[in-house]
Amino acid sequence: MQLQVAIDRLTLDDAVTAAKKLDGHADIIEMGTSLVKDYGFAGMQAMRAAVVQSQLLVDLKTIDEGAYEFQQGFKAGADILTVMGASSWATIETVAKTTAAAGGTMMIDLLEVPQVKLKIITDVKRAIYALHHSKDRHDKLDPTATVAEFHHNFPQVQHIAIAGGVDLAGAKALAAQGLTDIVIVGGTIMNASDPVAATEEFMEAIR
Amino acid sequence: MQLQVAIDRLTLDDAVTAAKKLDGHADIIEMGTSLVKDYGFAGMQAMRAAVVQSQLLVDLKTIDEGAYEFQQGFKAGADILTVMGASSWATIETVAKTTAAAGGTMMIDLLEVPQVKLKIITDVKRAIYALHHSKDRHDKLDPTATVAEFHHNFPQVQHIAIAGGVDLAGAKALAAQGLTDIVIVGGTIMNASDPVAATEEFMEAIR
Repeated sequence: MQLQVAIDRLTLDDAVTAAKKLDGHADIIEMGTSLVKDYGFAGMQAMRAAVVQSQLLVDLKTIDEGAYEFQQGFKAGADILTVMGASSWATIETVAKTTAAAGGTMMIDLLEVPQVKLKIITDVKRAIYALHHSKDRHDKLDPTATVAEFHHNFPQVQHIAIAGGVDLAGAKALAAQGLTDIVIVGGTIMNASDPVAATEEFMEAIR
Repeated sequence: MQLQVAIDRLTLDDAVTAAKKLDGHADIIEMGTSLVKDYGFAGMQAMRAAVVQSQLLVDLKTIDEGAYEFQQGFKAGADILTVMGASSWATIETVAKTTAAAGGTMMIDLLEVPQVKLKIITDVKRAIYALHHSKDRHDKLDPTATVAEFHHNFPQVQHIAIAGGVDLAGAKALAAQGLTDIVIVGGTIMNASDPVAATEEFMEAIR
């Protein structure tokens, strides 16, 4: 299982500094949507320059105009880009093509996607499907139960990620369960007094 | 009925030039999502400086972290911001509060929102509900039939907008129908040889 650390809601300078510190410690460093909407393409390039050893995921959250947004994201140097599962199937198909052409990876964010829609969109080969609990919701997510239920309902999905309030114990349980490719952690690491030490703690817990 | 002209997929310089030309001609000028993700907050401020007489809509397409994104959008000077109807209800409630606190206006983008979800989200007072056909889809939208059906199903919605391939005849028919507050036009105007003349033509058709 890999660890993805999400960097969000910082100035670009602070985000770049944080990314440089975490580079090589986390498997994947995420440039969060807030940074995309605050700093745009130039911000993506700055994050790419900061992340040399880890993979860079840019959380574009594309929901329309898939080809354009994914071309821009890969042009900026991202390894992985996100599309919303709530998009039209046409958008998901389009970004799958753009991703293949760019030799990149796509993550489908399943935030608020109903079961009936999941049945339509869970056949994209090589895509990572991210189970995602909205930050605006106040209820909590049980990581292993959520992954187990998704895997039971959609056994054809090969790559699962999970985001939304996963703590150290949750990450450890996910690793032991063996169904998840990527655990995504944001505030728990970034708000720690020492984010690099917190990253190492998570890395140790999931290995 | 008002006309909203969407500016998308240009360099910021060209977008600002276009916005200055259209300012005062269209009721609302839209900074499209591609410009947000390419140029970020500084891009929003540049568009705000260019649009003095018309209203400025920034097509944020927020789907999570509603308070942060809407605070940033209003801080940049937008009059109207968009949230995806596909968001969690918690996100929509959050941006409604942020919008009220900022004295701004919110538009709920109904792209790919199923009927069952529409029933939950159609009670936000003062919100504009935008019927929206994905640009990645190849089928066409019948504007007046789409609006009539939506109005029949959700008569409590007071403010309707529609986007997605509406041409001059479609805009005229929508104005005559009298159910739509805002018609949103992108490429048909922006790709015309003279976008200002095309805007005037639409404005005349809907008055």
